[in-house]
Amino acid sequence: MNAEIIAVGSELLLGQIVNTNARFLSQQLAGLGINVYFHTVVGDNPDRLKSAIELAENRAEVIIFTGGLGPTKDDLTKETIARHLGKELVIDETALASIELFFKRTNRVMTENNRKQALILAGSHILPNNHGMAPGMVLDSGSHTYMLLPGPPKEMEPMFLQFGVQALSKVNKSNEKIVSRVLRFFGIGEAALETEVIDLIDAQSNPTIAPLAGDGEVTLRLTANHVDENTAQSMLDELEKTINQRVGAFLYGYDDTSLLKEVMKNLKERKLTITAAESLTGGLFQQELTSISGASSVFFGGVVCYSNVVKQQILQVQEETLNTYGAVSEQCACELAENASKLFNTDIGISFTGVAGPEELECKPVGTVFIGIAVKGRPTTVEKITLGGTREANRNRAVKFGCYFLLRIIKESQNAN
Amino acid sequence: MNAEIIAVGSELLLGQIVNTNARFLSQQLAGLGINVYFHTVVGDNPDRLKSAIELAENRAEVIIFTGGLGPTKDDLTKETIARHLGKELVIDETALASIELFFKRTNRVMTENNRKQALILAGSHILPNNHGMAPGMVLDSGSHTYMLLPGPPKEMEPMFLQFGVQALSKVNKSNEKIVSRVLRFFGIGEAALETEVIDLIDAQSNPTIAPLAGDGEVTLRLTANHVDENTAQSMLDELEKTINQRVGAFLYGYDDTSLLKEVMKNLKERKLTITAAESLTGGLFQQELTSISGASSVFFGGVVCYSNVVKQQILQVQEETLNTYGAVSEQCACELAENASKLFNTDIGISFTGVAGPEELECKPVGTVFIGIAVKGRPTTVEKITLGGTREANRNRAVKFGCYFLLRIIKESQNAN
Repeated sequence: MNAEIIAVGSELLLGQIVNTNARFLSQQLAGLGINVYFHTVVGDNPDRLKSAIELAENRAEVIIFTGGLGPTKDDLTKETIARHLGKELVIDETALASIELFFKRTNRVMTENNRKQALILAGSHILPNNHGMAPGMVLDSGSHTYMLLPGPPKEMEPMFLQFGVQALSKVNKSNEKIVSRVLRFFGIGEAALETEVIDLIDAQSNPTIAPLAGDGEVTLRLTANHVDENTAQSMLDELEKTINQRVGAFLYGYDDTSLLKEVMKNLKERKLTITAAESLTGGLFQQELTSISGASSVFFGGVVCYSNVVKQQILQVQEETLNTYGAVSEQCACELAENASKLFNTDIGISFTGVAGPEELECKPVGTVFIGIAVKGRPTTVEKITLGGTREANRNRAVKFGCYFLLRIIKESQNAN
Repeated sequence: MNAEIIAVGSELLLGQIVNTNARFLSQQLAGLGINVYFHTVVGDNPDRLKSAIELAENRAEVIIFTGGLGPTKDDLTKETIARHLGKELVIDETALASIELFFKRTNRVMTENNRKQALILAGSHILPNNHGMAPGMVLDSGSHTYMLLPGPPKEMEPMFLQFGVQALSKVNKSNEKIVSRVLRFFGIGEAALETEVIDLIDAQSNPTIAPLAGDGEVTLRLTANHVDENTAQSMLDELEKTINQRVGAFLYGYDDTSLLKEVMKNLKERKLTITAAESLTGGLFQQELTSISGASSVFFGGVVCYSNVVKQQILQVQEETLNTYGAVSEQCACELAENASKLFNTDIGISFTGVAGPEELECKPVGTVFIGIAVKGRPTTVEKITLGGTREANRNRAVKFGCYFLLRIIKESQNAN
């Protein structure tokens, strides 16, 4: 079965936003064994949208639209498809009630054009929107399946996962499954990783191996096709085993995990609590930790210690340390981690101090970073790393390294016990 | 003049990477006054690529390809275009020398298939690649201009800016410039905003008005075409004036600004300092504030007070407050903001407490948020808002509302003085 993804929106053609929806849906469709041969982006123009629909009907059985379901006049995906297929648009009472509830809950006044969002293609099956107002819908015309999804990724992604996948499974006649697995590595560069597995990449056919680097991490995506999903999984298992014999030391997780999620999982399993003193990272580590639901069992709070005054007054860093070594130093990172752990009465304290850029600090170059980790009952460690990115990249990278060191130390501590 | 952007690569159709090239090129082309009506993504398949080329020839004068110029077997953009146009591929000696030099410089051995990258379409004009091996090229067939660019953004973007822009200016017969301006609104929904300006949207031709909602904000993009850029700007000025008479109260900035950047600008201008006590948002406000270079002049540090113990012990929230009203309350938000401001000795203290989800807390529903703002010399205000999104959306939205209230209070304070 073939699908085509049509993103509707002039903002995409003006380069104001990136079409991340096509990527998300392509990944999902691959997992369902549905081939995608084309992505199309078209503006808020009914004639050009109509031509894109006709073209897609000639090349695919499933046509997935993103965008153009909003309340405003330039949102015309439903209207254009309705005209093209000779269908009516009818008010869906459930969707209307849900839109009315959304306004009530958020204490806002519903305007008349919001009713437009409850219009659906007659005969379609609606996909509820739990994160916004415009419902999605699926229409089966006999020859084609049309799926309409909202444009904002925060609405589209959960809608597709919760309701879209099931709707597609029903119409999918192919038996072949595409099974994918992402191996996540940290602490090894893309070129170095590729060098280790280049013979496997060169010889690939099924499963395939695709390396991808980004944000300081490297991933290998393994993909296998087979009518039997278990066989496809076994093919991946075998390939993964070979890869792990070579670079397993750098593997930290699979698929959608992250270094931070692994830290959280390990802290919970070991019933350890943690706090942070963040200078360089300005709260990024704590923000990411608390973005995971259930963080409160391992994290009670922490400090953003951006200035030296806060480092001294709140976290008791000695004046002498700051005068002699500066805030960006091994000594300061050590005191911050230890004192934060004492102040918040936790098993672990982590500190981040460094020069994010663009200006140097204390005559230390941009990218100089010290990460302190104080763990009850073992000597505090401070890791110095040197980063070479922008301010934002350096802060993000520092948090990743912090998680990487934390994971290593948590696992070492366990092995020592 | 119209252009179409064709990205070539199966990795895009498998969702392994996002097509950021289309975004970059679209932005650039808009600036050059070249319309883009379609983006197409096609895999490494000569037949489907050929069909995409033929289609683009019917809809655009300029066709820009990204990707498929590499050394491997599946890189076939040049080969397919050559066959389609009946052109030869010939070795470009300058490109070959540059590839040889690249291998020498990186101490790597050049393989035979790397010579493939020096092949260019006969009669084309090459675009040197200063960040990789595959040269770009431009071929003018009389009826169409074909521009071939490499896939990696780090090679493509500088190549386009350094050589591609100039090549397109030569073939662009239109002198018309497209000028765009984005007006950013907060505190008004997309539908409500549109209702206020619907007559202007209905009557639009040049300039055009496009509303876009995302992440709790609404923007209006105004776009004007004119041969004289100043005239185009004046057309936008006039339209903006009309819009501001109606919804100017919700306008907070232009183009690439954000609520947070506006907060930072206003704090700096008024030499005010700020701290934060973050429960709900777990450090997000402070992280975003410190992501802006130069934050240290207005922000020294703050607390993430995730648990009640931290609220009491570090921020001196009274036990009675927590027992009587709970942590998610107006009273707690007020004490947090005031006490943080005292602890860090700042002009302003802001606090965020609430229920991010997915579970309710203290019998208060998900999305309940209190934001406290304590400003020296005026009574502390606490705003209650009700949000309806996911955990992540609620935290993000809360920070935006915090910035919005801050901006209003900072501006009010000034007007009062």
